Amino acid sequence: MSADDPRAALRERLRELDDLQHASRVLGWDQQVAMPAAGTAARGRAGGTVERLAHERLTDPELGSLLDAAEAAGEDPGVIRAVRRDHERARRVPGELVAEIAQAAADAQPVWQKARETSDFALFAPALKRNLELRRRVAACFPEAAHPYDALLDQFEPEMTTAEVRSVFDRLQAGLRPLIAAIAGKPLPDPLGGVYPVDAQRTLSLEIGRTIGFDDESWRLDVSTHPFSQKVGPGDVRVTTRYDEADPLSGLLSTLHEVGHGLYEFQVDPALAGTTADTGTSLGIHESQSRLWENQVGRSRAFWAHWYPRAQELFGDALAGVDLDAFLRAVNVVRPSLIRVEADEVTYAMHIVLRFELEVAMLEGSLEVDDLPAAWNARMSELLGVDVPDDAHGVLQDIHWSFGELGYFPTYALGSIISAQLWEAAGAAIPDLEGAISRGDAAPLRAWLGENVHRHGRTRTTDEILRATTGGPLDPDPLVRYLTTKFGALYGLVPS
Amino acid sequence: MSADDPRAALRERLRELDDLQHASRVLGWDQQVAMPAAGTAARGRAGGTVERLAHERLTDPELGSLLDAAEAAGEDPGVIRAVRRDHERARRVPGELVAEIAQAAADAQPVWQKARETSDFALFAPALKRNLELRRRVAACFPEAAHPYDALLDQFEPEMTTAEVRSVFDRLQAGLRPLIAAIAGKPLPDPLGGVYPVDAQRTLSLEIGRTIGFDDESWRLDVSTHPFSQKVGPGDVRVTTRYDEADPLSGLLSTLHEVGHGLYEFQVDPALAGTTADTGTSLGIHESQSRLWENQVGRSRAFWAHWYPRAQELFGDALAGVDLDAFLRAVNVVRPSLIRVEADEVTYAMHIVLRFELEVAMLEGSLEVDDLPAAWNARMSELLGVDVPDDAHGVLQDIHWSFGELGYFPTYALGSIISAQLWEAAGAAIPDLEGAISRGDAAPLRAWLGENVHRHGRTRTTDEILRATTGGPLDPDPLVRYLTTKFGALYGLVPS
Repeated sequence: MSADDPRAALRERLRELDDLQHASRVLGWDQQVAMPAAGTAARGRAGGTVERLAHERLTDPELGSLLDAAEAAGEDPGVIRAVRRDHERARRVPGELVAEIAQAAADAQPVWQKARETSDFALFAPALKRNLELRRRVAACFPEAAHPYDALLDQFEPEMTTAEVRSVFDRLQAGLRPLIAAIAGKPLPDPLGGVYPVDAQRTLSLEIGRTIGFDDESWRLDVSTHPFSQKVGPGDVRVTTRYDEADPLSGLLSTLHEVGHGLYEFQVDPALAGTTADTGTSLGIHESQSRLWENQVGRSRAFWAHWYPRAQELFGDALAGVDLDAFLRAVNVVRPSLIRVEADEVTYAMHIVLRFELEVAMLEGSLEVDDLPAAWNARMSELLGVDVPDDAHGVLQDIHWSFGELGYFPTYALGSIISAQLWEAAGAAIPDLEGAISRGDAAPLRAWLGENVHRHGRTRTTDEILRATTGGPLDPDPLVRYLTTKFGALYGLVPS
Repeated sequence: MSADDPRAALRERLRELDDLQHASRVLGWDQQVAMPAAGTAARGRAGGTVERLAHERLTDPELGSLLDAAEAAGEDPGVIRAVRRDHERARRVPGELVAEIAQAAADAQPVWQKARETSDFALFAPALKRNLELRRRVAACFPEAAHPYDALLDQFEPEMTTAEVRSVFDRLQAGLRPLIAAIAGKPLPDPLGGVYPVDAQRTLSLEIGRTIGFDDESWRLDVSTHPFSQKVGPGDVRVTTRYDEADPLSGLLSTLHEVGHGLYEFQVDPALAGTTADTGTSLGIHESQSRLWENQVGRSRAFWAHWYPRAQELFGDALAGVDLDAFLRAVNVVRPSLIRVEADEVTYAMHIVLRFELEVAMLEGSLEVDDLPAAWNARMSELLGVDVPDDAHGVLQDIHWSFGELGYFPTYALGSIISAQLWEAAGAAIPDLEGAISRGDAAPLRAWLGENVHRHGRTRTTDEILRATTGGPLDPDPLVRYLTTKFGALYGLVPS
């Protein structure tokens, strides 16, 4: 490739954009993990400037011309498609609208917090109406979309449609409601007691992270209020978790979840470095990677067959009287409940189905904001059989709508669905996957995911990855099968 | 100030520059403190891009016009002067020369390392000649300078001249050589024995840092290979240190040193935030702040009268049999030696005088690079009475010349000189300063430094600060007096 090859010119452009995004990622990680609190104002300003400079480069018309020229010259079509999508999307939504959205979100934050504290939805309703209006204007920037919600969903799930999600979610909830109803009457296992020192939890988290796939030259593990994972750049993956000394499970499962996210980006083909296409292709695929390691692996008997003796060694007395069966019941407790972030593997997706339905209805205008709490409470009763006592434990519980973030929630459940599809495919492709996991050997699964999902970065869409690995499209049946089989056995249910 | 006021336009420009420098500072801190090793290549690229974007803004001719217009409109002349100096300096040195210097430094690094390992100066000589040639070209960009070295010194000590430094260093070495000779024959104190756990060292470092001036909303203390201090932005000061479990002094004195640097920038007037003038005005003044807290305060009887009981409490057995007098002798051991970074308070400046003389001679051409080792060894013998066994322990010991960094070394000794001048001035202005320190009360000294040095940021030069606080220019006599008095008493020397 010569210096005046349009592919080289494109790569040089993308490298500068990627460098600015690299700086943004470090500023973000630092803010959540390291920055002293009094640095907040200056950080907000500096982060905003770096993002603006990156946005200028992304929307530059010359980038559009370079994409065309580089495509004609044979540049990787997956890279061209991913970057062109970013470029066109960024150009479609006017900068003033982006600024209005940011301002509305900043204004709505304290209002939502106050409303949640006092469980007063009426206080939050005007801000939500404003956010909704702004998102309708975003959707209107994409008049070719079949449904206005498609334009919002597309930010997080490129090329997925509202109709597809609706159909899949309908099948999912129909499939899971009998299981949830059957489990609801069963007694809960004893909770784990004792004290689990942070140092021991960190040691176990590090050992598990290293076994799953990181070398210590390439990652670090820290604590943050809200655990997250961030690849800063090639060879630099940051994972955070949190530790509760009264409960070892929340920290360990959080670590597994974030390690799953981190491993995804860590294993992207190094040839994509600097193209901005070396990250996750969609939030659904991203979430499938975290859920797979957290749930299919991290809540399995095979996994703990290997790791439970080590946990007992590290935690000493606290787990001395708890056998593996009792521990596994504690790891897999199921209880229909009010709060999404506390939900278990079986009921979690119902919280998402609810939010998706309500978001679509509000955006369409078929549900008025003022009627939202009543709709929420009625549907919670249908989906999970729980009564919502107040809006703080209902419609006001999540921060997302205070940012006006619509289209994001579905990706959580898409992650669960996809994780089960990939898990079935991996199980069929890898001889004795369960045996490997029960020996503490994550290499076969890591290699399979690397080859079939991770290395492609953003050059393949969700649908392309699913068709290549499972032979078909997004499909909720593997998740229903997996949950029904696993929890049927754990809860001693009679197969229907 | 209206929106079309040129002062507002200048501030907006400077804010963007400051935001990019903020990002650079975070990238730098992260690289030294947090980044996994495998992230190095990507970080180098991203850091380079952010620095290039900042440099483009600094050299923009429109910035020059804005400085003129804002000055006419009444902008703070200290801010105008500091920014104009940056702007003009950056425009004077061509970008290609800057790139050549960076490349030569990168090429010279491994050569210098190899040369030091094998104590083979001849191996390093060609790289040093190349670096010297490039610095002569930098100096030639400033033809109005009275001496070519002035142009290099000016990067670190704005408006200070080679002639002034030479005269002050001549007086300093004449003043200190009798003291060094008198101490050289005296027996050394017993070294401290025992083990000093890192946790206890960190606890003491944090307590001292908080007492000197930081609140935990505004700083953090970490470990790095080479301790440093960095204000990222207002309310966000990062200090690093290192701990040696066999020696509590190196870590504690390193913490005091870096806290001194950090406190300086922490106390800059918040009104200067975002102007790029809210940092240290020169490396000499910066180093005076670190040395003052490390030496005049941190190696004093008054300081340890308060802190030694706490140290004994934290370190338990290790210090149980060591009384305050013995501990103070260990803190203040003096021994002429070969290595600059291991030198004590009395002999340190001689290492710098040596380097300054040799740098000036090489730049002038009165000393050939090939003759440098012989000149080094002869002058070490005169200044410190030590024989240099090989070049690894002599001319090859420091990294600076491998970067081609000339003009930097003098600032270390300027820091010592200025710290003694400010210490005398503070002692005269603050009633019972020693009493306050012996009660663990750093507030009077912190307030005096804040008012007279720190708050001005870069709006006052070294000379202006010295004249305002001491009534005169840079002067080595206070340092000679301070060292002669203190070490005369410690070593039982007869006053001459």
